[in-house]
Amino acid sequence: MKSNLLEHIHSPIDLRQLEEAQLPQLAQELRDFIINIVATKEGHLGASLGVVELTIALHYVFNTPEDLLVWDVGHQAYGHKILTERRIIFYTNRQLGGISGFPKRSESIYDTFGVGHSSTSISAALGMAIASNLKGDFEKQHIAVIGDASIASGMAFEGLNHAGVTDANLLVILNDNAIGIDPSVGALKKYLTSVKEGKNPRQNNMIRSLNFDYSGPIDGNDIYAVIKELKRLQKTKGPKFLHIITTKGKGLQQAEENQVKYHAPGKFDASTGEIIPKQEENLPPKYQDVFGLTILDLAKKNDKIVGITPAMPSGSSLKFMMDAFPKRAFDVGIAEQHAVTLSAGMATQGMVVYCNIYSTFLQRAYDQVIHDVALQNLPVIFCLDRAGLVGEDGATHHGVFDLAYLRCIPNMIVYAPLNEIDLQNILYTAQLGLNHPIAIRYPRGRGVTKDWKIAHLGTYEKIEIGKAKLLQSGAKVAVLSTGAIGNNVTLALSKIQHPENFAHYDFAFIKPLDENELHAIFSQFETIITIEDGAIKGGFGSAILEFSATHNYTSKIQLLGIPDIFIEQGSIAELQQYCKISVDSLEIIFSSC
Amino acid sequence: MKSNLLEHIHSPIDLRQLEEAQLPQLAQELRDFIINIVATKEGHLGASLGVVELTIALHYVFNTPEDLLVWDVGHQAYGHKILTERRIIFYTNRQLGGISGFPKRSESIYDTFGVGHSSTSISAALGMAIASNLKGDFEKQHIAVIGDASIASGMAFEGLNHAGVTDANLLVILNDNAIGIDPSVGALKKYLTSVKEGKNPRQNNMIRSLNFDYSGPIDGNDIYAVIKELKRLQKTKGPKFLHIITTKGKGLQQAEENQVKYHAPGKFDASTGEIIPKQEENLPPKYQDVFGLTILDLAKKNDKIVGITPAMPSGSSLKFMMDAFPKRAFDVGIAEQHAVTLSAGMATQGMVVYCNIYSTFLQRAYDQVIHDVALQNLPVIFCLDRAGLVGEDGATHHGVFDLAYLRCIPNMIVYAPLNEIDLQNILYTAQLGLNHPIAIRYPRGRGVTKDWKIAHLGTYEKIEIGKAKLLQSGAKVAVLSTGAIGNNVTLALSKIQHPENFAHYDFAFIKPLDENELHAIFSQFETIITIEDGAIKGGFGSAILEFSATHNYTSKIQLLGIPDIFIEQGSIAELQQYCKISVDSLEIIFSSC
Repeated sequence: MKSNLLEHIHSPIDLRQLEEAQLPQLAQELRDFIINIVATKEGHLGASLGVVELTIALHYVFNTPEDLLVWDVGHQAYGHKILTERRIIFYTNRQLGGISGFPKRSESIYDTFGVGHSSTSISAALGMAIASNLKGDFEKQHIAVIGDASIASGMAFEGLNHAGVTDANLLVILNDNAIGIDPSVGALKKYLTSVKEGKNPRQNNMIRSLNFDYSGPIDGNDIYAVIKELKRLQKTKGPKFLHIITTKGKGLQQAEENQVKYHAPGKFDASTGEIIPKQEENLPPKYQDVFGLTILDLAKKNDKIVGITPAMPSGSSLKFMMDAFPKRAFDVGIAEQHAVTLSAGMATQGMVVYCNIYSTFLQRAYDQVIHDVALQNLPVIFCLDRAGLVGEDGATHHGVFDLAYLRCIPNMIVYAPLNEIDLQNILYTAQLGLNHPIAIRYPRGRGVTKDWKIAHLGTYEKIEIGKAKLLQSGAKVAVLSTGAIGNNVTLALSKIQHPENFAHYDFAFIKPLDENELHAIFSQFETIITIEDGAIKGGFGSAILEFSATHNYTSKIQLLGIPDIFIEQGSIAELQQYCKISVDSLEIIFSSC
Repeated sequence: MKSNLLEHIHSPIDLRQLEEAQLPQLAQELRDFIINIVATKEGHLGASLGVVELTIALHYVFNTPEDLLVWDVGHQAYGHKILTERRIIFYTNRQLGGISGFPKRSESIYDTFGVGHSSTSISAALGMAIASNLKGDFEKQHIAVIGDASIASGMAFEGLNHAGVTDANLLVILNDNAIGIDPSVGALKKYLTSVKEGKNPRQNNMIRSLNFDYSGPIDGNDIYAVIKELKRLQKTKGPKFLHIITTKGKGLQQAEENQVKYHAPGKFDASTGEIIPKQEENLPPKYQDVFGLTILDLAKKNDKIVGITPAMPSGSSLKFMMDAFPKRAFDVGIAEQHAVTLSAGMATQGMVVYCNIYSTFLQRAYDQVIHDVALQNLPVIFCLDRAGLVGEDGATHHGVFDLAYLRCIPNMIVYAPLNEIDLQNILYTAQLGLNHPIAIRYPRGRGVTKDWKIAHLGTYEKIEIGKAKLLQSGAKVAVLSTGAIGNNVTLALSKIQHPENFAHYDFAFIKPLDENELHAIFSQFETIITIEDGAIKGGFGSAILEFSATHNYTSKIQLLGIPDIFIEQGSIAELQQYCKISVDSLEIIFSSC
C-alpha cells in the first residue's frame, strides 16, 4: 500500500511539493475522502467529485491564495476546502458552528469570494483582476470556475461581455458536465454539446466572438491534460476561456449514473454507493410535493395552466407536471429574470402561470416582479419555495427577506399557508382568477398533515382573499402568526399553563391584511405578538404596526422573527431556536406574558 | 404640395391601405410630427426618429394588434403611438393625466407589454409566442424590437437562450445603432460592429449559435429593404433574428451628430434643431452633478477610488470622472447585476468602489446587493440616483421602493442626504472607510444650495454614522424627515402660524437609526410625524414604528410618503401634491395638528 498523500497536505504549499506523477493517487485519495465524509455527514457530492482533478491542478499550478480563485455556486468546492487548511474540520461541513457548505470569505483566505447563488464568479473575478491592474500587479491570475448551467445565466453573460473588452488577467474555466442540479437546458447548452461532439459547424466560436482567448474542450478528469493547459494559460495575459469536460459524480458509479439524485444524496454507503433509505413512512408530505402534486392535478382540469421553474424541476417538484404535460411545464435554466418576464408575457395572453422560484432566488428577479408583473397587474402566481430559514445551506439560501421586499409592491397579494391543506387550497384559488399577482411562500421540508395525500389531494376549497383565521380563542394576548411557523405557536400554546389567555390568529395573508379582524383584535387586546419566519425589519409585524399607527391603536405590540443579521447554517430547529421562534422559545415567551 | 398622409391614419388599418411607394412620404411626415411635438413638449427624440421606417414597416407588414409587437425600453415607441390611435393626444405625452412616454398596456391594445426598463422584450414576446402555440395558433407572429445596448443585458441573453430551443414564432429585431442613452459598450457591441463592417472573420455567427434563423445586417432606414425582409420573415416559422442598422436621431442633423444630447433634448427649435437654452443661471446644482464633481475631486486625492455605472455615464455625471480617470471609471453597459458584483470583487481587493445606479434600476441587482455585497459585508458605496418620485418618466422609473427593500438587509447603511452639502460630505465620509456597505439615495433634479459649487465643493466634513440632526426645535410635534423631502418640511413650517409647535429632525440615516435621539424624541413628544419620498409600506416610517414598538413607546405616529399604488407620470411637484408630501400638503397637515 502506498503511503497516504492527502494526510500530509495542510495547504497548497504542501501540494506543490509533490511530483506530477503522484497527483493521480492524490486525486483518488481526495475523492475517497469526500465520499467517506459526505456518506455519513450528508452534503453535496456529485459536483465536487467531478472537479477533483481540476481542483488539484488549480492549486498545483497557480500560486493560491496570491492568485485568486473564485468558484461559481460553490457546490463543487469540497475538494478545494479539504486542500486549503480545512481537511481536519471538514466533518463539520454544513453543521451549526461548523464550516459552510460553500466558499466563504470569513472562513479562509483561499475562499476569495462567498458564493451559494450561481453565476457571480466571472463578475467577481473580473473585479479582482481589474483591481490588480489598477494596483500595478500585472502578473497575478484571477480564475473563475463556472459550470455550463451557471454560465447560461444572464449575469454570467454580462461578465463575459465586459471582460472581453478589458486586458484583465481573467481565466474563465467552463466546467462543462451538461448538468446543474438538474440537466442543463437551452440553446447555449445545445451549442456546447455540438462543440464537444466535434459537430459544431461554426468555423470559430461564440466565446471567441466575445474576444476571449478560447481553448478546449479538453478532458477535465485527465489531470495531466488539465495541468498542461493551465501552465500554458498561466503565461497568457488578458481574458482567457478554457472549456473542460468533466463527469459529475466521477469515481462513484451510482453518482455518475444518477447525477440528479447524487447531487446531494443524503446518507449513503461509502463503499457500495447505495443510498441509505430514510425512515420516512407515515410522515407528513414535503411542501414541495404538495405543490408538485397539486399543480399536476389542477393542470389536468384547467388547460390554461402553465408551470415554470428556473432550473429546479426536481427541487420544486414541478417535475411531476413536466413529465405529464411536457408542453405546459418549462425548465428555463438558471434564469430567474427571464422566468418571471416569460410568465408575464404568457399571462398577457390569458395563461394561468405558476412561476415556482425559491424565495432566495426571487431576489434575482425583483425588478421583473415589480416592473413586468405588478405594475401591469398581471395575475402571475409566484410559488416561493424554501421561504424562511432553510437549514444547512445557510446564509446564502435562507428565504427571509421576501415578506419585506414583496410587501412594498403595489397590487401584490402575499400569502403564506399555515399547512399543506391551505397550500393546495390557495393554489386552487389562484387559478380561479384573482386579478392580481400573488406570491405564495412556503417553507422547505415537511408539513404537519400525515394523511394529506390520501385524504386531501384534489379536494379543494376556495380561500377568501385577505381573510385571517382565528385558530384558538383566548382572553389576554393576541398572537398573530403568518405561515407555517404558526404550527410552532400552536405547539407552544399546548405546553403552557394558561393557554386560555392566548388567542391565536393565522394571518396567512400578509397583504392584503384582514383589517376587519385587526380592528376587532386591536379593540379587544392590549398585548399583541406577531410571529413570522422572515426578517422582522419591514416584514409582517411591521405591517401590523403600520395598521396600528394608521388607526391610532395603543395596544402593545411585540415582533418576533428573524433578527437583522445574516443567519448561518444549522438545522432549521437549531436556527429557529437561535432566532427565538422555536416551540421552546415561544413557550418561554408566552409563559412570561 | 402632396396631400398629408399621416392625418388620415388613425390606426394601422389605414396605414395598410397605402401603396408601398407612399411610405417614404409618410415616414417624412411622421418624423416631422415627432420633431414638432417633442420640440415644444419635450421627451425622448433620437430613438423614435431612428426607427420611423421600421415602425411603419412593422405595422404595414404585420397584422397588429393581432400579431404582437413588443418594444424594448420604449424610448423609441413614439412613432408607434402616433400610428396606433394616439396621434391626436400625442401632445399630452409624459404629462400628468396624459399618455405615458412608454408603451403601456392599459393605454392601448397595440401596447402589448409595458416597458421602461430595458431588455425585457425577448422574454415577454417569447411568453406570448409560447402561449399562442399552446392555444393552437401557429400563425400569429410575436415581435421583439430591441436595441444593441439592451440586448447586451443578461436578461436578453436568457430570453435568447430559451427561445433558441423552442419552436415559437418569435421574431427578434435587433435595432443596431451603437448607442443606448450613451454609446454602447462591451464585447458584443464590438462583435456587432465587426459584423456591420463586413470585417467579421467568423464564418457563421453568434446568434446562429443560439439556434436562430439570422438575417442581416440590413439598412433599417431603407423602408423598402425592411418591408421586403419582414415579408419574408412573416412566412418563416420558429425563432428568427433580424439585424438592422439604423441611425439614432435620423432626419434631424443635430440629433444625428450629437446623439447623447438629443436622446431627450428638452425644448428645441423644430426647424433648425437648435436646443433652446433654459434659464438656468444662479440655480442650485443638480444632485447628479454634485455626485459627479465630488467623486472627481475625491478621486484626485484617493487613488483607490473607482467609479462604476451601468450605462448612465451622462445621466449620473460619472462622465466627469471617466474623462479625467478613464482607467478608474467604468461604464459596464446595461448590466446592473454585473455592476454590483464587479464592485464587490473590486472591494475584496481594497478598492473604494462607488457604484452609481438609479434607484429603480438597482431593483435589477437586488440579489447581488444581498448575496455578493451585504452578506460579505463589503464596503461598496452605492449611489442611488433618481431616488423617490422622478416625474415625467412615470411609474416604471420612480425610485420609491429602495428604502423598503434595502432596510431589511443586514449590514447595510442607508443614507438620504438633506441637501447637496450632505451629499458631498457622505461621499467623502464613505471613502474614509465604513466597514459596511452604504446606500446613498438622492433625488432627480436640483438641490437647494445655489452657491454649492463655489462655496462648498472640496470642503468636506466627516459625517457621524447613524446620527440624526435637529433642524428646528419645537414644543408639541416632532417631524422626522429623511432625505431632501425634508426641505419641503422646512418650507411648510415657514408658512404655518405656529411653527414653534414643531420640532423638525433630519433622519438622513434610515439605517442605522439614531436610537439615542429617538429615545429623547419619544420621551418628549406625544405626536410624531414621519415623512419620506418613498413607499410608506416598509420604509422609514415603518422603521420608526419598529423602534417605538421595541421600546414600548406610546406616542402617536403618523406616516407620510408614497401610498401603496403605482404613481403615474407628471411633474415632481404635481406628484408630490398627489402623494400629500408637497409643501402645500404639509402646510395643511401641520396646520391641522
